[in-house]
Amino acid sequence: MLTAPKRLLYGPGPSMVEARVYQALAQPVVGHLDPFFFEVAEAVRAGLRRVFGTSNRMTLAVSGTGTAGMEAAVANLIEPGDKVAVFVCGYFCERLADMARRHGGEVVRFEKPWGEAVSDEEARQFIMRERPRIVAFVQAETSTGLYTPGKTICDAAHEVEAIVIGDCVTSLGAMPAEVDKNGIDFAYSCTQKGLSCPPGLSPITVSGRALERIRARRRPVDSFYLDLKLLEDYYDGRKYHHTASSSLLYALREALAAIEEEGLERRWERHRRHHLELVRGFEALGMRMLVPEGRRLWNLNTPRVPQGVDEPAVRRHLLERDSIEIAGGFGPLAGKIFRVGLMGPVATAEGVRSFLDAFGRALRDAGGYTPSTASASPTTTR
Amino acid sequence: MLTAPKRLLYGPGPSMVEARVYQALAQPVVGHLDPFFFEVAEAVRAGLRRVFGTSNRMTLAVSGTGTAGMEAAVANLIEPGDKVAVFVCGYFCERLADMARRHGGEVVRFEKPWGEAVSDEEARQFIMRERPRIVAFVQAETSTGLYTPGKTICDAAHEVEAIVIGDCVTSLGAMPAEVDKNGIDFAYSCTQKGLSCPPGLSPITVSGRALERIRARRRPVDSFYLDLKLLEDYYDGRKYHHTASSSLLYALREALAAIEEEGLERRWERHRRHHLELVRGFEALGMRMLVPEGRRLWNLNTPRVPQGVDEPAVRRHLLERDSIEIAGGFGPLAGKIFRVGLMGPVATAEGVRSFLDAFGRALRDAGGYTPSTASASPTTTR
Repeated sequence: MLTAPKRLLYGPGPSMVEARVYQALAQPVVGHLDPFFFEVAEAVRAGLRRVFGTSNRMTLAVSGTGTAGMEAAVANLIEPGDKVAVFVCGYFCERLADMARRHGGEVVRFEKPWGEAVSDEEARQFIMRERPRIVAFVQAETSTGLYTPGKTICDAAHEVEAIVIGDCVTSLGAMPAEVDKNGIDFAYSCTQKGLSCPPGLSPITVSGRALERIRARRRPVDSFYLDLKLLEDYYDGRKYHHTASSSLLYALREALAAIEEEGLERRWERHRRHHLELVRGFEALGMRMLVPEGRRLWNLNTPRVPQGVDEPAVRRHLLERDSIEIAGGFGPLAGKIFRVGLMGPVATAEGVRSFLDAFGRALRDAGGYTPSTASASPTTTR
Repeated sequence: MLTAPKRLLYGPGPSMVEARVYQALAQPVVGHLDPFFFEVAEAVRAGLRRVFGTSNRMTLAVSGTGTAGMEAAVANLIEPGDKVAVFVCGYFCERLADMARRHGGEVVRFEKPWGEAVSDEEARQFIMRERPRIVAFVQAETSTGLYTPGKTICDAAHEVEAIVIGDCVTSLGAMPAEVDKNGIDFAYSCTQKGLSCPPGLSPITVSGRALERIRARRRPVDSFYLDLKLLEDYYDGRKYHHTASSSLLYALREALAAIEEEGLERRWERHRRHHLELVRGFEALGMRMLVPEGRRLWNLNTPRVPQGVDEPAVRRHLLERDSIEIAGGFGPLAGKIFRVGLMGPVATAEGVRSFLDAFGRALRDAGGYTPSTASASPTTTR
């Protein structure tokens, strides 16, 4: 029998999964047209509306990972020749731009160094100048730890009648996605981060405005698998499209039930509070955060790697000695940041404390770092 | 806690899943770049090569259902303007043609009524006349129960230097897919039929010939999620592409291990033997099969609905009284056939016997059928 190691998942995702969710995952499979399947699917859709903060009828879990959700947004909304404005300040915005081009979009970019925030004024001016048909941004940039709620972007976009795609892959379930309040037209996410569920599905939600745009397309969506009209016919009309995984939906149903029992706002607050503890811990170790206060993701923390520290060695040590997974930076941030997730079951005082113990030890033993000296003068470390 | 009903899955899929596979599914999640993840992924890739009957290095499980595998084949192989020859004699061939058009293919069709086989001579002549760049066919047509191994099609296609896409969604693991022997260049399947695993992944295998074609593309694949080059970089180069589901890979690893323990040929033979028993049972009930002998899928049986029988009522009765799922026909076969899967754990003498008992009862009690009269003269029933 396959036996997996029990990792402590402090990376950018997947995150820890509670026992009740694993139990749901292993419940007996039913058919993709079974009445019980649709009962579960409807419960999932209702739960997703609540975590997304939306009343969009068109809310469902796409049968693929977060990247499939991103592609669903891009493939359904963009037609060849459409001008697509993308705010690029991290890896997943780059991916959005790449995808938009693949599906025929004419991409215009507003760029910032990875991890730097676009100001409200910059966002507005860019959109007003370019007047695109579609605007895409990342609310929770997993490569940098930057949070951009999106209200200014959406307001400006709607003034020029653009549709907004918002990446909520890392925010959903752990901090406010607030799709309706922010005005995001097509939001997508994943199950394995803020929802504390195994990976395999991509929650999406689509506004009436976006649906109108999609219904007015001149040519069919290039992807059959991700064609929203066909997904709508399946979930609303029970017309076969593909064999959605009852197992993954069971798990998501249970993960959403756990979130409702805790209370969504309470869950956000728990992530915020322990994020602040974790940041204080990093600072006590003499480290500085990449992202300025107020724009930090609560559930994905990105302390800079102190000078001279062997970053891959620290991660390897954590994995091998403590079975703790964290991630490093990549692209322009390779070797420059750690990416430390604090999601779901480990977003607790004990989760922070035990992580900081192990992390401090790994920095010292494997990274060649002397936190004691550094912590005496945190602000001058680098 | 979510509790799912224990269905007896005798439909076209999903099929029954063994306890050991559920146990693997519920093992702790690990990261998508964890060494253990790649250990499992490599074991899955090796196991898939054996069930596909191939030595293709490029064999892996796409993070989506069978339809995602179909789209991976179409999106990677077809460039706008490519001539694509499709053999159309059922729903999934229609879907292939639809998808090929969405991705820019110029589709030429060879049509037969649903359930009727294309002869070797017809296949050859069509390919020689059209000289397409890509040929697509369905080896195991789930909508009709027809089996088309594909050797003649592949031989002819290769003569004109076409690449062959073969749909093995329903054959893989239950009857010979034999990708290399038949000459299929890009085969795709699913986990929830012949492999007796929960749905969520799509095994694919790609020949060197097909890879060359893909590498020589003039423009990028429109789908980022299904771009084979990126999937290759992920699985061979361990370069992040998406967060593949460790849970689903655990389950597939365990399902493949169970198949190896049984022996692939022995498993095929088990499906063949009990398929013959099931067909005898249908005939004893006075029913006739849609597909002629020799071209029938062993694991998906399609008896015609006897005249006057209320087909949906029979299915509803089976589901409600016996918790047995079977399917009906659709499209031109709506109301005309039942689709009865006999896959994995239920492909046994006891599985056949208990199904026939319940099915005979449902035909009589809900369908208004008198099998006793009919079985006296099976050949004249319709």
